[in-house]
Amino acid sequence: MGDKSPIPKPPMLYLVGFGLHSYKDITLRGLEAVKGSATVYLESYTSIHGESLDAFEKLIGKKVHLADRAMMEQTDKIVDESCRENVSLLVVGTPLFATTHSDIMIRAKEKGVDVEVIHNASIINVLGCCGLYSYSFGRVVSIPYFTERWKPTSFYDNIVRNHQSNLHTLCLLDIRTDEDRFMSVNEAVDQILEAAAITGSPLINEDTRIFTVCRFGSPSEEIVYGKIGDLKLRSFGDPLHSLIVPAELDRVEAELVGSLFK
Amino acid sequence: MGDKSPIPKPPMLYLVGFGLHSYKDITLRGLEAVKGSATVYLESYTSIHGESLDAFEKLIGKKVHLADRAMMEQTDKIVDESCRENVSLLVVGTPLFATTHSDIMIRAKEKGVDVEVIHNASIINVLGCCGLYSYSFGRVVSIPYFTERWKPTSFYDNIVRNHQSNLHTLCLLDIRTDEDRFMSVNEAVDQILEAAAITGSPLINEDTRIFTVCRFGSPSEEIVYGKIGDLKLRSFGDPLHSLIVPAELDRVEAELVGSLFK
Repeated sequence: MGDKSPIPKPPMLYLVGFGLHSYKDITLRGLEAVKGSATVYLESYTSIHGESLDAFEKLIGKKVHLADRAMMEQTDKIVDESCRENVSLLVVGTPLFATTHSDIMIRAKEKGVDVEVIHNASIINVLGCCGLYSYSFGRVVSIPYFTERWKPTSFYDNIVRNHQSNLHTLCLLDIRTDEDRFMSVNEAVDQILEAAAITGSPLINEDTRIFTVCRFGSPSEEIVYGKIGDLKLRSFGDPLHSLIVPAELDRVEAELVGSLFK
Repeated sequence: MGDKSPIPKPPMLYLVGFGLHSYKDITLRGLEAVKGSATVYLESYTSIHGESLDAFEKLIGKKVHLADRAMMEQTDKIVDESCRENVSLLVVGTPLFATTHSDIMIRAKEKGVDVEVIHNASIINVLGCCGLYSYSFGRVVSIPYFTERWKPTSFYDNIVRNHQSNLHTLCLLDIRTDEDRFMSVNEAVDQILEAAAITGSPLINEDTRIFTVCRFGSPSEEIVYGKIGDLKLRSFGDPLHSLIVPAELDRVEAELVGSLFK
């Protein structure tokens, strides 16, 4: 009655892409969302963030809480909080690449919470960075850690299938944040050669040239193009690592690769 | 002799991802680069930016110059300027998705200019946003405007090939910035059906369900899932438009799609 205060906006859940490496990779829109949130989480089990959160916490003037697998998948804590007040969930790279984040979006919507997705760069951005056509990539594959008894080779079959269609393959390597294990290029290459032997498909061998992509988007980013046999002898430093198995390069690609990797 | 002034840093060419829609989609790192540059360009022929540049120019305190096709491909103006002082080239979405930007990077390096790439979200980020697995996308295709005499159908063959491998297809639609023409979902769907008739491959018809993706990442973003026959009767508003032709959905995908597009 006569109250002129504005109608309060309903609370939001912001899924905020945190970008590839540094807190400076957040967008202005993402920063606004985080500053306007009562609580800020960082999803910490599908990826790792490249640097300490101190500078970012200082910038936003609040603490960043880590959201591990249990918090993401087994409880509704984040969704329930966002029924009452704005909450931001930071996701390294971009949200929604992994279905974990689609899932929390659906649970929020079911409880009537509005969700805003704030996109950012992710490893998929590497597609154009090596001089290869983005349009000439086939499906992305994920290489899981082999164990003594479990050596799934479907990733290798998919690389072969891409190659037969003359398509490059971006290979993402296994991450076990709970065990602090991040597959290195060297481990991945060993598994690729092992998969070649298991499946009997000789597409990839020590003479195959691949791109190794390490710490993409960070100041210590390193992208190397070389023969597997030579790459095996090198160390590639800190995580995260990925690699690209190219198909036959076309003329323009070969020129670009030649210029970029002299 | 005795001069203690710091050694000046050599000038840089920054390729700065401008993100999907608003100037607020730039990253903090991108903003730093732009503020530290003598001249700022916006690459204006491979894409368009969603809003006026006034607010952004006010924020950075300098003018943004448009770089059209001629400036990007036929002259070395931008590279030559970056030999003398810091220059930023803003790219809508993310740099290096198109080879135009690899090309300017190579020309800069040949003249001894350091290049820093500042990544950002692009249309490729849509991969996870519809409830489909990012890993289940095949190669991206680009649908060019048909003319009376030129009706290339290779994009359709690639959609069919992806589908046969049970992979979804992200279709990017033609942009002719010089003619102010941006292919709409409706035009694209007509061409897809025409290509189906020309090639005699009946994979896609009026009953096929697709996703239309309009103004991705903007406040007026609209993603619709429906049958082509129904979608043809609708208008989808301002550019940019894209679409996704999904393969068979697996159980989890079908659930996610069902929840997101009730």
